[in-house]
Formats: sequence, C-alpha cells, structure tokens
Amino acid sequence: MATSGKVIRCRAAVAWAAGKSLSVEEIEVAPPKAHEVRVKIVATGICRTDDHVLVGTFPDVEFPVIPGHEGAGIVESIGEGVTSVKPGNQQCLSLTEPQNLLPDKTSRFTCKGKQIHHFLWNSTFAEYTVVPEYTLAKIDAAAPLDKVCLLACGFPTGYGAAINTAKVKPGSTCAVFGLGGVGLSVVMGCKAAGASRIIAIDINKDKFARAKEMGATECINPQDFKKPIQQVLTEMTGHGVDYSFEAAGTADTLIAALASCNMNTGVCVLAGEPPAGSTIPIDPFLLLSGRTCKGTLLGGWKMRDSIPRLVASYLEKKFNSDLLITHTLPFAKINEGFELLRAGKSIRSVLLF
Amino acid sequence: MATSGKVIRCRAAVAWAAGKSLSVEEIEVAPPKAHEVRVKIVATGICRTDDHVLVGTFPDVEFPVIPGHEGAGIVESIGEGVTSVKPGNQQCLSLTEPQNLLPDKTSRFTCKGKQIHHFLWNSTFAEYTVVPEYTLAKIDAAAPLDKVCLLACGFPTGYGAAINTAKVKPGSTCAVFGLGGVGLSVVMGCKAAGASRIIAIDINKDKFARAKEMGATECINPQDFKKPIQQVLTEMTGHGVDYSFEAAGTADTLIAALASCNMNTGVCVLAGEPPAGSTIPIDPFLLLSGRTCKGTLLGGWKMRDSIPRLVASYLEKKFNSDLLITHTLPFAKINEGFELLRAGKSIRSVLLF
Repeated sequence: MATSGKVIRCRAAVAWAAGKSLSVEEIEVAPPKAHEVRVKIVATGICRTDDHVLVGTFPDVEFPVIPGHEGAGIVESIGEGVTSVKPGNQQCLSLTEPQNLLPDKTSRFTCKGKQIHHFLWNSTFAEYTVVPEYTLAKIDAAAPLDKVCLLACGFPTGYGAAINTAKVKPGSTCAVFGLGGVGLSVVMGCKAAGASRIIAIDINKDKFARAKEMGATECINPQDFKKPIQQVLTEMTGHGVDYSFEAAGTADTLIAALASCNMNTGVCVLAGEPPAGSTIPIDPFLLLSGRTCKGTLLGGWKMRDSIPRLVASYLEKKFNSDLLITHTLPFAKINEGFELLRAGKSIRSVLLF
Repeated sequence: MATSGKVIRCRAAVAWAAGKSLSVEEIEVAPPKAHEVRVKIVATGICRTDDHVLVGTFPDVEFPVIPGHEGAGIVESIGEGVTSVKPGNQQCLSLTEPQNLLPDKTSRFTCKGKQIHHFLWNSTFAEYTVVPEYTLAKIDAAAPLDKVCLLACGFPTGYGAAINTAKVKPGSTCAVFGLGGVGLSVVMGCKAAGASRIIAIDINKDKFARAKEMGATECINPQDFKKPIQQVLTEMTGHGVDYSFEAAGTADTLIAALASCNMNTGVCVLAGEPPAGSTIPIDPFLLLSGRTCKGTLLGGWKMRDSIPRLVASYLEKKFNSDLLITHTLPFAKINEGFELLRAGKSIRSVLLF
C-alpha cells in the first residue's frame, strides 16, 4: 500500500559547484514515485568519497548535488509497488552504481527553484532523501543508527577487501597502506581472518595507536626511511607480504603496495579511490612474475543482503566498527567534519540530524 | 659419479651487442663444475623473448650473450655432486630467473678469447650448453626432441595461463589478444578447459585459420572496427568476457584486454612480455569495479616437475602443440628464423643442430 505523500521541506547540505564548501540549505523533497522510498536520515558518516565530490575529482558527478552515502534512517513513506519495506522500518542505505538522477531520470530535490542532483542513489546529507526501493537494506530495529551507518560504506569496504576480495588466510602477512576509515577496516578484516602479521603504513603517525588497537602488529612511516617503502617491506618480510592493500587512494601507494607483495604469489587489493582521470603507471614485470592486482568496490559484498548480516554481526560484537568513529557532530557542523577529515584529525565523523 | 670433461669446441649463435643480428661462431664450452650439467642441444625453438634480447628490450641482459631458452637435448657430462641425471638422458631445459652467469658468477662460454654470457641459465642457441642441475627436467626417452622443445617455454606459458593462472571454467567466454605461439597456446588451453566461446584477436588475419584449428570460435581484427576493440568485445558478449589474455606484449593490448573483461568478475591475464622499462597506464577504475589483473610467467607451472608431465600428456595426445610449429630449419639458418618471426610469417620455427 502506497503512502500518499506531500512535499517535505527540510535541511540538506548542497554542493553548488566543484571546489566550494557545502551549503546547508532548506530544500524541498518530493514524495516517492513508484518503486521509490522516502527515508528520514538519522545519522550519516562523512567519507573521503564525499570530499572527492566537493573537490571535483569524483567521476561524472553533476552539480548542484546533495552528497552523502553512508547513512542510516527510517522509512517515512513509500511509492506505489514498494513491498519490501514500510514506513517506520529502520534502514541502512546501500550505494549502487554512480547515478545523478533516480531511475526515471528525474530528481526529487529542489532548492531555490533549482533541481538538485542525487548522488549514488543515496544523498544522505539531507534530512529526507528519496531512493529506489532496491537500494535499501532492512536492518535490525535494535541497531544504533548513529553507529551502524558506517556499515553502509567505509567499514564493509575495508573489512570485505580483506575477507572477500583478498581472502586473507590464517597465519599470513599483510601490509595496509593508508590508515583512514577504509584502511583501518582492512586491518580489522586481516585480524579477523587470522593474519599473524599486519603491517600498517601511513605518513601520519597519529593514526598508529588506533591501528594497533584494531590489530596492527607493526606501524611504519615511509618518511622514516631513505629507501622506498616496498624495499623496506620486502626486507622486513624476506620475500614481500602475502597480501597488500591500497587504502590511500594515490597512484604512488598502489605501485608501492603492488611491489611490496611476494613476486610469485602476492595479491594486491586496490581499496582506495584514486582521483578520477588518474592513471597508474604499472611496470608490467611486477605482474608478469606472478603477482595479482585486483580492485574492490564496497569490499565485494552483495550489499543489500550483506548489510543486514553485518549489522547482526555488529550487534553480536563480532567486530567493533565503533573504533572508527572519532567525532560525532550535529548536522549543522558538516563543514567542520570535512575540515577534520582533510586535516587528518578524524577517521570517521558521524553527523546527527 | 662425475664425468671428467674437456673443453668442447662447437657452434653457437652469439649476440655481440643489442641491435645486431646473431652471429654463428665457433665457441669453447668448458666442462660442467659441481652441480652443473653439460647438455648437447638437439632442437630449440625461436621465441619472441629471444628477439627482445637481440633488439635490446629484455631487462638486464649483458652482452655478448648466447640467447635461446626453448631447447631440448641430451646430457653429455655432469659435474660433481650431480645426482638427478646422467649422460645420455633426454632432457628439456627449463628456464628460471634472469641470470647472465651461472650460480657461481662465472661463464662456461668463450669465443675469440672473450667471455660470453649465459641467458636464463639456458643458452640453447649453442650446440653444447652448461646449466645448473636443478634447471633440468628429465623427460620420457621416447619424446621427439624436435617437437617437445616447445614444452620448455612457449606452449606451457600460454596453455598454463588459461589452465593454471586464469583457471578458466567450463562454459565461459574468453578473449585472446595476440595469436603468436603463446596466444595460440592460450587458445588451446581455453578449449581444453571447456570454454564455450573463444574470441581470438590479431591484426594479422593470416593467423585466423590456425587459431580456428586450435579452438577459436571467432576471430576478429581490431583494424576492421572504428570503435575500440574493448567496446566491440563488450557488445559481442553483453557484459564483457569472463577471461581475457594479453599475449601480444604491448601496453595498449593489455589495457584493451583488461577493459574487455566483465567489470565485476572479469580476470585479465598478462602472458605477453612487454618491452623492459615500459609502463602500462592503467585507469584504476577498471580495477576498482572488481576486475582482477594478474601476470603469468611460464603459465604458473613448477617447471621442473611439470615439463615431464606435459611431455607425457603430449605423448598421450592430450594436446597437439605440433600445430605451433610452422618451420623447421637447420641451425645455420637461425637469422632466417628470426626474419620469419618479425615478418609475422611463422608461429614457431624449430632449429635443428
């Protein structure tokens, strides 16, 4: 049964153009059309990908746009034909392929008379958003939304990179490049998979204590060495690590990660997101000797099925993704959250409406 | 028991400097030292890798050098401590890591008073060569050396790229870029693995008939299309192929191969050998969506154990690597063999001493 809906006026953070800060505005959110759901967002994380949108390096974004894609909320109303959720259900939002409009090629957002674009069929930087039904994952009503919102993107991306994409084996040696939210989640995934040695790498030493808390056995800063970090890691491990993970999002770290793993059997997983349009100049002999390089988007989970299971695991304390949350801020302080991210002072800031 | 040996004077093809043709010379081959074996080469294939040595694009080669690494022969004498072979044994030679000298950092070759370098611990372009014991694979005495010499490099590289590295599944769709000896062996491997569709790609149409004979279901020439070949393949298959293989040895074909496989699950195997010092500018988003890119050296076989088994399979007619042999030439015509290779007129030329 569809809920007859009216336009809702509410707050949202709008990116009017690339290179500008977000502007908290009053927007209009149209009711959901057929097979769509309007969700009241309760909490949303700030992910580096959102910053890529603001800077203008996320591919194919159209401005103005409402970013945000790591959110959790409650169904407010549903469009015709929606059967899997009903108003009042607690939800996580799962992202899909890059899309700037809903499937019918229109937007539900307007602001000051202008159409505002959607982002990844999420746009969680809005008090209310409209998404296609099949992007929603219904989760346990007992889950704290201000915590499990991270299970919509950052945590599963890193954790799944280790568990699903690399399939880390017990007793193995891992190297994780970049200790942001994704990288630290990789560390947790490697630990959960039984890796015996987890070497965490970052140029920001302030992240080392947290990495160790999550399972890193050693933390190193490439700036402390004169030789290339891949050489350091090869010497530390004899033949290179079994698995290396790129979670910093640069071409240089990807090449270093690839060169750090065992030349015959090493697996390098690209989990970070390099700027759109960048290319990685890979020496083919790094691959020819037997290395594998693979990418992961969202950690190889089938998100709609996996998020509810990840939330259940969270409630059973099988992992502690709360360790990623360094700041909780009211939604109005969203730009402060981005400043903390850019300054390397936060891992995840969670915004509350 | 070691055979007391004397210096042997015999013919060999010497590459005196990069960019020059091979020169057939009389050389001196010293007796094998401890843990070394002197082998009388009976037949050797000409591989594109040998041409890379001549052109000067194979990494870390030192001139003058005796190339050749796809040979089969008979043990002439053995050094102290050699236990696994004895004079008279039929052998295939298996290559190892790039090495310009034997393990004790000296050479057994001289010519006109100069030390000549070894190549890959093989140097099969010589009537007699000296190799470390552990690079030799002992094969069935009934095997025709003028045929199974290909099982030392070209055939297992391509066949293994499909069977071992990609692990092609029955019913899958494959694309093979480059129809030289390695590429055609990939085609045979895909067929043996039960692929239902094998798309062979080359800019030389003369190779298509042979590719079809070996199992290709379709053959296409990128020059027949205005759109990029990766787009052609994606349209032919709906979502891209399951497995793509690069066997042409260029950065462009590797990128096309990577982009041709399914964005979420595709596996791209680098089996060709790009010029030393080249880099491949890979768009990280090709990997991030879920593709895997991996390299293969010698097809992922443990050569010393695998060559005898491959020879046994050859004798049982489980595959027909003879189809790769387009020319058989006397050793003196070695430069003619290279000309045929460069002109795209041969797949494999086998030289007989």
